[in-house]
Parts: sequence; C-alpha cells; structure tokens
Amino acid sequence: MRVTIKEVATEAQVSIATVSRVINDKGYISSKTRNRVNNAMRKLNYKPNIAARKLHGKQSKTIGIIIPTLNNPLFSELFDDIEKHLNTYEYQTLLCTTNNSLEKEKQCFELLKSNQVEGIITSSHTDFLDNHTFDGYPVVSFDRITSNRIPVVKSDNLNGGRIIAKRILEMNKSYVLILSGTKDGFYKNDERIKGMLSIFRASDISIGKAAISFASPTNRKLALIEQILSGKKYDAICCTDDVTALLVNLVCTDMNYHPLVTGYDGSKSVRTLFPNLITVKQPIDQMAKLMCDILIKRIQYPYFISKDEYSFPATLIN
Amino acid sequence: MRVTIKEVATEAQVSIATVSRVINDKGYISSKTRNRVNNAMRKLNYKPNIAARKLHGKQSKTIGIIIPTLNNPLFSELFDDIEKHLNTYEYQTLLCTTNNSLEKEKQCFELLKSNQVEGIITSSHTDFLDNHTFDGYPVVSFDRITSNRIPVVKSDNLNGGRIIAKRILEMNKSYVLILSGTKDGFYKNDERIKGMLSIFRASDISIGKAAISFASPTNRKLALIEQILSGKKYDAICCTDDVTALLVNLVCTDMNYHPLVTGYDGSKSVRTLFPNLITVKQPIDQMAKLMCDILIKRIQYPYFISKDEYSFPATLIN
Repeated sequence: MRVTIKEVATEAQVSIATVSRVINDKGYISSKTRNRVNNAMRKLNYKPNIAARKLHGKQSKTIGIIIPTLNNPLFSELFDDIEKHLNTYEYQTLLCTTNNSLEKEKQCFELLKSNQVEGIITSSHTDFLDNHTFDGYPVVSFDRITSNRIPVVKSDNLNGGRIIAKRILEMNKSYVLILSGTKDGFYKNDERIKGMLSIFRASDISIGKAAISFASPTNRKLALIEQILSGKKYDAICCTDDVTALLVNLVCTDMNYHPLVTGYDGSKSVRTLFPNLITVKQPIDQMAKLMCDILIKRIQYPYFISKDEYSFPATLIN
Repeated sequence: MRVTIKEVATEAQVSIATVSRVINDKGYISSKTRNRVNNAMRKLNYKPNIAARKLHGKQSKTIGIIIPTLNNPLFSELFDDIEKHLNTYEYQTLLCTTNNSLEKEKQCFELLKSNQVEGIITSSHTDFLDNHTFDGYPVVSFDRITSNRIPVVKSDNLNGGRIIAKRILEMNKSYVLILSGTKDGFYKNDERIKGMLSIFRASDISIGKAAISFASPTNRKLALIEQILSGKKYDAICCTDDVTALLVNLVCTDMNYHPLVTGYDGSKSVRTLFPNLITVKQPIDQMAKLMCDILIKRIQYPYFISKDEYSFPATLIN
C-alpha cells in the first residue's frame, strides 16, 4: 500500500505540515528537523503524489537558467552543455541574463518562477539568494556559494590558482601582476587569487594587484588595462579569467610590451582559437552534467539530499 | 468617445469577426482585406481594448528570443543587444536555442507561447514559420525570410558578398574557395555567395566551392576543413561567416599554408580579438534596436504595418 504523508510525519515525530514544508522547501525548517523528515521519507520509501504536484503546475518540463552574460565563452558553453544534458531528460530550458545586476537577477527569478519552471540553475554572481526565499524551487548554483541550502558545483579554484602560480615561477618571472576580471575579486576572498598568493608569497617574486569591472563595455576595459600596464613593469600578468587575458594580450601587442599573460577557465572555444594561452581548464561539460543530474533528481525526489558542494579538479593547459 | 470594433468593421465593410481576426492575426485573411481593416483602424484611430488583451495574458512584459546557438559571437551579441533595447521598453527576455533543428524550433515556439510572451524575435534558420500558424503572436525575424507575414531585419548580404569579392580581386588572387559555413549555403540561394559569384564570374579568377555543416562539433569541422584544404591549391578562401574563417586560419597555420582568409559578420568580439581579419560587418546593434522597435510597436498597435524587409548596409572591415 502507498505510504502516506501521515505515516512519514509519525515516523519523523513531526506534524504533517512540517513534512509538507520539507517536501515543498517552504518556510523555515531547522536542518535537524529537515534531516529527520528526509530520513523518514527514505526509510518508508515515500513517493510524493505526482498528480498533486502536477496540479500545482510543477510539470512544465522546463528548467530556468540564469547567467551573467553571454559575452564570455565560459557561459555560452555552459549554457549549451546544460541544454544538451537537460534534453536527455526531455527538459527544455529558458535562459535569462543578469549582466551582474542584483535587480536584474531578482527579475530573472521572478520571471522564471512565474513561468513555472521546475527548477533553476544559476551562475549569477550576486548574493541575492542569501537573502531571499526561493519558494521551494530546486536550485543548483554554478561556481558561487549563494546559500547553504543550495548545492554548488564548482571546480577547485584554490588549486587552480596554485598551479598557474607554480607555472609562472617555473618560468623565472620576478614581478607578477594579479589582474582580477571583477572588482569584487579581492574583496570576496576569491579562491583563485588566494591560491596564486599562497604560492607567490612563499617565493621571491614581487606581486602587484589590480581589478577591472566585469560588466564594463570592452572599450572601457581596454582603456583601463592600458592604464594599469602603462609602466610596463610586470614580466607576468595572471588574469582570473580568459577574456581578461585575451584583452591584456591585445593591449600588450599594441604597446609592444611582451609579458607572460595567463588566463583562467579554458573554455573549448578559447582553447581552440588561442591554443598557446597558458590557462586553467574547468571541466565545463562534466560540471553542466552534474548540475542537471542533481537538479532533476531533486525535482523527482524532493527528499533527495545533495551535498553542499561538488568540486571538480582544475587542469593546467600549456 | 471611444471607437468600437463595430465602427471599424462598418468603415472597412467587413464583419466584426474579420476585424478581430486581423487584430489577433488569427486565421486566413487576404492581404486586400487585411489592408482595408488596417486602414479603417488607422483612419478612426482605433485602440484595441488593453484590459481585454491583458485578460488574455498578453501583458507578460516578456519577449521570447529564438536563436540557433550561442557558440557564435554573432548570436550572443545579437541577444545581448536585443536584451539591452528591450530593457529600455521595460520588457524582459526569455531565450531558447534550436541548434538548427526544426523539431527544437517548434518546441521553442510552443514553450514561449505557453509562457505567454507578448512577441517573438527569431533568428532561427529553418522554414518552420512558413508552414505553421504563429497564433497572432507578433514575430520579427533576423536575417532570414521566413514568411511574407513576418518582417525581416537583415543587412545587405548581396552587396556584402560583392565587396568582399572585390577586396579579393584587389589582392590579385587567382584561385578562390568559397566556403559556406552551412550545408544549405549553396542550395538556398545564399545572397552572400551570390554577391561573391557575381564579381568573381566577371573576372579571371578560378572558383571552388565547399560547405561544412553549421551544427557540427568544432573538432568535426576542423577535420572537414583540413580535408577540403588538403591540396593547398587556393590562394584565397572566402568564408560565409567569421567562425568558419577563424577555424580555417587555425587549420592553415597547422598545415603551414598561408592563403588569404576572409570572414563575414564582424561581431564586436571577433573585431576586437582578431583585428586583422578581413570581414564584412553587419550593424548588429542597430539591427537589434530596429527589431525591438518594430516588435513593440506591433504589440502596442496591432494594426501597425511594418515593411516586409528592412535592410542595413554591410561594411568592409580591413
């Protein structure tokens, strides 16, 4: 016979309303209670009533994707890969971009929710999710820790920073600039930068730091980079993303200045078109697949407990 | 006093149902009748009942965008520009990609319609819209003529083909390969190729033709290009898009083979990262703005008559 929500409540020694809150991820539940309910559901092999969920519009077979911009091959490849994997589950996608604006990110969430997506994959860079309820929508985050209730799929940024720094040291450079592609880079404990600094500080190399704003138009970025590099004093420039590295290379060529320039992310198109760039590769396709798998599992089994964080290895390219 | 649909029907000498069909763009209407109704609406300054349209879910303040892929900077910039312009109208966007599959394009249309977007901008490359009703949704098409009921915003591909061919002739090349980035290139009367051929055929230059499939994975494309170029017999290779040109350049470098390679599209990122590429620029941002303007006008004034085609000039880069 079918296990009822009442039996789950009895097993977990909580009220039916509490079980319902856990299933629908609505309202505050302590992690202790949440675990007790989840354990009871698993023990009794409780299956939530799919028909009832369908009535609530939860079977749109659509997943919402939120990304900051498409003008970065990392994100356009991430989207393509997510699309491909969700298609194998017969899910479609709706994409929304935020251009790193908190307000636009809120709008994206509202828009996707009002369109009854069954879940959301976000790679947005703001902290919106820390402060707002996500109304029971299954959410998976790419790279950024947004809330302890949302699983994060990332690659090992700390080690990525370390391996690129070791590569710089191998090449006997003496003055390195760490150039963050986002103004937040130095304030938010960026793991890539932490990794680089941990290696550089244990060596003789001198370190400079600078940041440009992620959301600036390209012309503005180029002008800023030119200003930052005007003294031509660095013999290595470590960028926290490939797009910044490619722009730095352009400016340096114009300046007839030839430091070693390294990137980060290693998207397929950057590796194809710039095969000599020293960079760190995130396994985008594998990360996309895992995000889809977790999200679909969470949709199919509301009591599926994911880990808080899934980390993939970062690999040096060149 | 407010003009009624009845007065429009009387003025146009048609039934109320016919006026309604024109307003909602549903069912077959001859272009003669359509024009008569539109003229009557304009003459009487008829404003459709916004509240009633709202009831039908027509005020979602959302526009659906359909593009073939994000792995081409032309389309990612197009989307970013459309987004920017729609935001000035306080409209949001939902994006769907088709990967050039007719089936996925149909799914995109259904998905966007079920999400009650108020209009659709499509740059999809299939002929879906020729054969299917679009249920009264205002639609604008980028570059491709899909149906004579849908306005197309394009750039002057015929002249674009001509100017790139003239550039090749100026450089005294003798054997040119026209390489289409899509297998359909030679079958669908591609205007760019037509423009190139019109110039080459009036000269002494020898012409070869080849096509690779737009939707293939990059590795497959690179292998195909290598095969096509294996004889190293061309001294110029004219590609119908920039991505193909960049891949050709990669293969040629590997082969130690140095023909002149030209592209087409001239997106901002390609012009920035590959400043020496000879290509033809489509004014993407202006085209995006016009598509948004037409679509919003069509949403606000259902009897707004757009031209069938809007063409922007194509400009030679380098």
